[in-house]
Amino acid sequence: MFVLGIDPGVSRCGYGCVARTDGRDRSVAAGVITTPPSDPLPERLAALDAELRALLADLAPAAEAHDAATAPVVAVERLFFQVNARTAMSVGQASGLVLAAAVQAGWTVVQYTPNEVKQAVAGYGSATKEQVQLMVTSLLNLSVPPKPADTADALALALCHLARAPMAARVAASPAGGARR
Amino acid sequence: MFVLGIDPGVSRCGYGCVARTDGRDRSVAAGVITTPPSDPLPERLAALDAELRALLADLAPAAEAHDAATAPVVAVERLFFQVNARTAMSVGQASGLVLAAAVQAGWTVVQYTPNEVKQAVAGYGSATKEQVQLMVTSLLNLSVPPKPADTADALALALCHLARAPMAARVAASPAGGARR
Repeated sequence: MFVLGIDPGVSRCGYGCVARTDGRDRSVAAGVITTPPSDPLPERLAALDAELRALLADLAPAAEAHDAATAPVVAVERLFFQVNARTAMSVGQASGLVLAAAVQAGWTVVQYTPNEVKQAVAGYGSATKEQVQLMVTSLLNLSVPPKPADTADALALALCHLARAPMAARVAASPAGGARR
Repeated sequence: MFVLGIDPGVSRCGYGCVARTDGRDRSVAAGVITTPPSDPLPERLAALDAELRALLADLAPAAEAHDAATAPVVAVERLFFQVNARTAMSVGQASGLVLAAAVQAGWTVVQYTPNEVKQAVAGYGSATKEQVQLMVTSLLNLSVPPKPADTADALALALCHLARAPMAARVAASPAGGARR
């Protein structure tokens, strides 16, 4: 599996790409796309959109080489009701760009809540940023923790999908078909 | 001036384009882009983005013919703190696509709050949807009111910019330079 995690944001949009081969996970790319707060918002969104599309295009050959038969996956943080409506708005604008660009580039899109990510990576939904960072470092055998935190969060999103997808596939394929009550 | 108003939304995204020649405003195009609620959100955003980019491309020749010297304008509803965070999120996602696509297509982007639009078109900020619809019909000499309401709202955004832009230009060009306190 080839999974690109994206933690959407206008000021800082973290990304982290993980490839799984024979049960072993390897970080393929990780970083953060930033836009200058001094620029007008429409220009920042246009720049972010262009960078996201370039990132997907840059990773396409590696995804193809890793597994030509299956569409690569973009795992994005699922947005939910927030107290801070101003932040929610710009995060929403950034996530709209991520979702549209990923589908148009032919990637499969999945979404996970922050709690699902923490549960999958650190074992419990109320894990701290530092605990997530440590677990990402350990799971990917990195020599130093990924920084900034946005990058670690994006890698955690990718790892979350890698942890959950096999189980989701088994549930869907079982006779009960995931329809348990 | 050549102005495309856009009222962003994932289910219904209204658009209305108005050209001003010799002080007379004419509706160039108006309608609504819809996406099926039964489709997954990422696919709906990808479809909306593709339709928005196609709309901008379709209007480019008319904008060029109208005024080759000045970039055409996209007037978008400015988002603000909302009570309903779920609606705000999808409106935010749609507006992100509009702003990024408009800048990338070379259009100038302006934003107005719903109150500014009502004030400019109907004379007061608490005008009803029906009053805005009637004023849009009258100002553009339409034989029937534009429907659905999203279309009228988009035309009203364009008319708002046409009403306010000349005054904004005069203030900016005055000796005080708009720096009055």
